[in-house]
Amino acid sequence: MDALEPRVWPMTTALAVDGQLVFGGVFSKQLAREYGTPLFVVDEADVRYRIAEFSKAFAFSDLECSVHYASKAFASADVFRWVVEGGLGVDVASGGELGLALAAGVPPERIVLHGNNKSAEELERAVSAGISAIVIDSFDEIIRLQQIVRHQNDVVDVLIRLTLGVEAHTHEFISTAHEDQKFGLSVTSGAAEQAAVAVIGIPGLRLRGFHSHIGSQIFEPIGFEESAKRALAFIAHMKAQHDFETEELDLGGGLGIAYVPSDDPPSVAMMAKALHDIVVSESARLKIKTPRLSVEPGRAIVGQSTVTLYEVGTIKPIQLDGDEERVYVSVDGGMSDNIRTALYGAEYTARVASRETIGAGLQSRLVGKHCESGDILIRDLVLPSDIAPGDLIAVAATGAYHRSMASNYNMLTRPAVVSVKDGQSTLLIRRETEADLFALDQGLHR
Amino acid sequence: MDALEPRVWPMTTALAVDGQLVFGGVFSKQLAREYGTPLFVVDEADVRYRIAEFSKAFAFSDLECSVHYASKAFASADVFRWVVEGGLGVDVASGGELGLALAAGVPPERIVLHGNNKSAEELERAVSAGISAIVIDSFDEIIRLQQIVRHQNDVVDVLIRLTLGVEAHTHEFISTAHEDQKFGLSVTSGAAEQAAVAVIGIPGLRLRGFHSHIGSQIFEPIGFEESAKRALAFIAHMKAQHDFETEELDLGGGLGIAYVPSDDPPSVAMMAKALHDIVVSESARLKIKTPRLSVEPGRAIVGQSTVTLYEVGTIKPIQLDGDEERVYVSVDGGMSDNIRTALYGAEYTARVASRETIGAGLQSRLVGKHCESGDILIRDLVLPSDIAPGDLIAVAATGAYHRSMASNYNMLTRPAVVSVKDGQSTLLIRRETEADLFALDQGLHR
Repeated sequence: MDALEPRVWPMTTALAVDGQLVFGGVFSKQLAREYGTPLFVVDEADVRYRIAEFSKAFAFSDLECSVHYASKAFASADVFRWVVEGGLGVDVASGGELGLALAAGVPPERIVLHGNNKSAEELERAVSAGISAIVIDSFDEIIRLQQIVRHQNDVVDVLIRLTLGVEAHTHEFISTAHEDQKFGLSVTSGAAEQAAVAVIGIPGLRLRGFHSHIGSQIFEPIGFEESAKRALAFIAHMKAQHDFETEELDLGGGLGIAYVPSDDPPSVAMMAKALHDIVVSESARLKIKTPRLSVEPGRAIVGQSTVTLYEVGTIKPIQLDGDEERVYVSVDGGMSDNIRTALYGAEYTARVASRETIGAGLQSRLVGKHCESGDILIRDLVLPSDIAPGDLIAVAATGAYHRSMASNYNMLTRPAVVSVKDGQSTLLIRRETEADLFALDQGLHR
Repeated sequence: MDALEPRVWPMTTALAVDGQLVFGGVFSKQLAREYGTPLFVVDEADVRYRIAEFSKAFAFSDLECSVHYASKAFASADVFRWVVEGGLGVDVASGGELGLALAAGVPPERIVLHGNNKSAEELERAVSAGISAIVIDSFDEIIRLQQIVRHQNDVVDVLIRLTLGVEAHTHEFISTAHEDQKFGLSVTSGAAEQAAVAVIGIPGLRLRGFHSHIGSQIFEPIGFEESAKRALAFIAHMKAQHDFETEELDLGGGLGIAYVPSDDPPSVAMMAKALHDIVVSESARLKIKTPRLSVEPGRAIVGQSTVTLYEVGTIKPIQLDGDEERVYVSVDGGMSDNIRTALYGAEYTARVASRETIGAGLQSRLVGKHCESGDILIRDLVLPSDIAPGDLIAVAATGAYHRSMASNYNMLTRPAVVSVKDGQSTLLIRRETEADLFALDQGLHR
C-alpha cells in the first residue's frame, strides 16, 4: 500500500512493523478490542495542534483577532476543554450546544450563539448565562430579544449576520451570488442597515459588529477577501450614515481540509495573513477604525484529527460491464455514522488498519451494513486483494460532521468516540446501547 | 388554502371550523401544547388501514402470499403490535431491529432478517430466537451461518437474495441495469446458483426460496413483473438442473406513496393483482410449482400515516433576481428530523395547522433551524402571506424514514412520536432530552 499521506491522516498516525495503523501511540487492534467497532478515534495532539495553529496564526500586533471553535462540527466536553485550554472561544448554534459548552466549563464570555431560528428559550438561556454575543439573524429575533432584555439591567452584546452576495466553493467564489438563503440580512436590500438601526435603538442591546459566512470546505482566500471588502464597505457606510463605530467583524468559518491526498488546502497561517491584510488595508483605505477580526473554524480544527475504525464483514466481487470488476467491501457501520458521502458526495481515504496486506490493489467500493443501496462510504477506492472479513479498516478525516450528524438508522447504535494520546486512550463519548434506544420507546414500558 | 388532498394526508385528517388541522380527532394545537414541537403524529387508523389493505390485497385462493412490514421505515413497539394484530410479518435488517421486534412481542416465526453484512452476533441472535428465515446476501454469510448451525439440532430456513439486473424507479424500470450494487448474488454470473447449491449442501440450512428487491418509491408494476419473470426463470433452472423445489419467492418492497398531490401511486390491490398474475402465469408457462409470494412494504404502510408538526419561528422575505420574492419560513426542526429533502431531493406537502389563514399564497421555502444553508425541508411551496411566528405547520407523509433516520445534529433532541385515534393521543416514543444526549459524554462524568 501507499505511504501514509500526512495531509489526510491524524498527525500522530504511524505504521507499525506489523502493518498496523497506530494513532496517538495506540494500536488499531487494541482500540477495536477495547472499545469495539465502528469506533471514532480522535488524535488529541492533532486537535490541540490545530487549536494552537489557529491561535498563533491569528495573533497580529496590529489587528486584534479572536478564534471561535464551531462546535456543530463535533461537540464533546473534552474537546471543549481542549479548545478553552488553547485559548479559543466557542460557537454554538442551539440550546443543546450551549448547554453542553456550559456544562463542560466553557466560560460564558467565550461563547457566541448562532442560528437562523433561535427560540425564546434559547435566547433567554444565552442571556442569563451571560455569553459573549448573540448573532442576530432576522427581524423576528430582534423583537424576541427585545422582549427578553426589557426586564434586564444588563446589556447584551449582539452581532448582525450580513448577507453579502458572496458564495465560496473549494477553489472559486461567486461574487454575484443571489441572496437566496435562509441566513442573514441583506446589505443590498437595506435589511441589514435597517436591522442595525433597530438594534442600536434598543437600550438592552449593544451592537458590537457584523458577521458573515460564505460557505464551507474553502481552499482559497479570495472569497473571504471579497466578503471582507463588502462587509467593511457596509461598516464604512454605517459610520458615515449613522456615526456607528463597528468593533468586530466576524468572517465566519469554512476553511477546508484534505479528505483525499489530492486535496490541497492552504495553511492556516496563509489564510490568516490574507484576512489580516485585507481587513487592515481596506479599513485604512475606507478611513475607518479597523474592527477586531473573528473567525469560526470547525472542520479545520477537528476534521483531520479523527479516523473511523470499522471491521470488514463481507467481501463481494461484482462483474461490471466489460471485463471490469468491483469489489464491494462491507463494514459494520455506514450511513448512520457517515452521512456525508450520501449527502454531499464527499470523498474519503481509507486503508487496512490491522495488518500488512500483500495483495495487489483492486477497484473497490466501501459500503455500510444498512438496508439501503445508497449506503456507500467510499464510492471508489483501491483496496488490497487479500482483504478479508475481520480486517480493520480506517477511514481518515471523519472528525467533523460525522458523530455530530450520526443517526440510529436501522436501529444501529452510534459508535463510541475515544481520544488517543501518548499510548493511552480515553473514552470521550460512550457507545450507545440497545437499552438506550429502547428506553425512548413507550410501547415497551406501558 | 386548498382543500386537503386525501392522497397525501393521513386518512383521519380533518379541517376544523377554526381552521385547525385535526388528526385522529385530536387538534393540532392540543398536540403541540401537550407534547411540544417538532412532533411526529401517527394516525393509528391510517396505519391499521394500510395493514388491512395489504392483508386483503394479497389474499388469493390460488396463490399463498405473505406480507412483511419492513421495519427500517419506522420501528416502534406499538407499530409492531399493530402489524402483528393485522396478521402481517416483520422484516428486520439489524440486531437492533430484531431486538425491538422481539421485545415488542412479534412472534419469532413471523420475522425475517435482512442485511448485506450481518454480524455473527446478529445471525446467532436470529438463529436462537427461531425466526422465520434469514435472507442470505453473500458467500461470507453462508460460511458464517454454517459455523453457527453446526452445533444446532434445529434447521434454519434461509432465502438467497438475487441480483436480477432490474432497477425500478417511480414510473419506469431498467431491465438491463448492471449489477453494480452491494446487495444480492448475481443470477447472470452464476453466483446465485453457486450459493444455492452451497446452501443445499449444508445440513443445518434449509433453502426455502429466493428474494429480490428492485428499488423504492415505485409506481408501476412493470419492474416487479420483470423481476418476477427473471426470478421464476432462475427457479425453473434450479428445478431443471438441481431438482430443487422453491417454496417461496420474495419480491421485496418498494411500493411508492404520494408525497405531493401530483404523485399518483397505484392501489395496493392493483399491484397485488399484477404480481399474482405474473407469478401464476409464469409458473404455469415454465411448468414449475407456483412458489409462495412474499412482499415487504415499509413506506407504503407507515409513510402516509404521519405528519410532522413544527412551530414557525422566523419569517424572512428574500428578494430574488428580478422582481420575485421568496419567503423563508423557519421552523423548530429541520434536517435532523427530515434528512430526505437534503439526501434524496424529496418533495413534501405542508400547510398551516393551527388556524385559518386568510393571506394570499406566497412563493415560500420551508427551512429548519440547523446551522447549515442546506437545511431545507420543502424547497418550493406556497404559504399564506399572513403566516406568523407561533403558527403550527404540518408536513405530510413523514412516517417512513424520518424518525428512523433522525440525528442529533446541532445537539437538537429528537422529536416525540405520538399516535392519535378517536380523539385520544398516546406517546409512542418520548422526546429526547438534553440529559439523554449528555449521558453519553464521558467528559461530563469523569
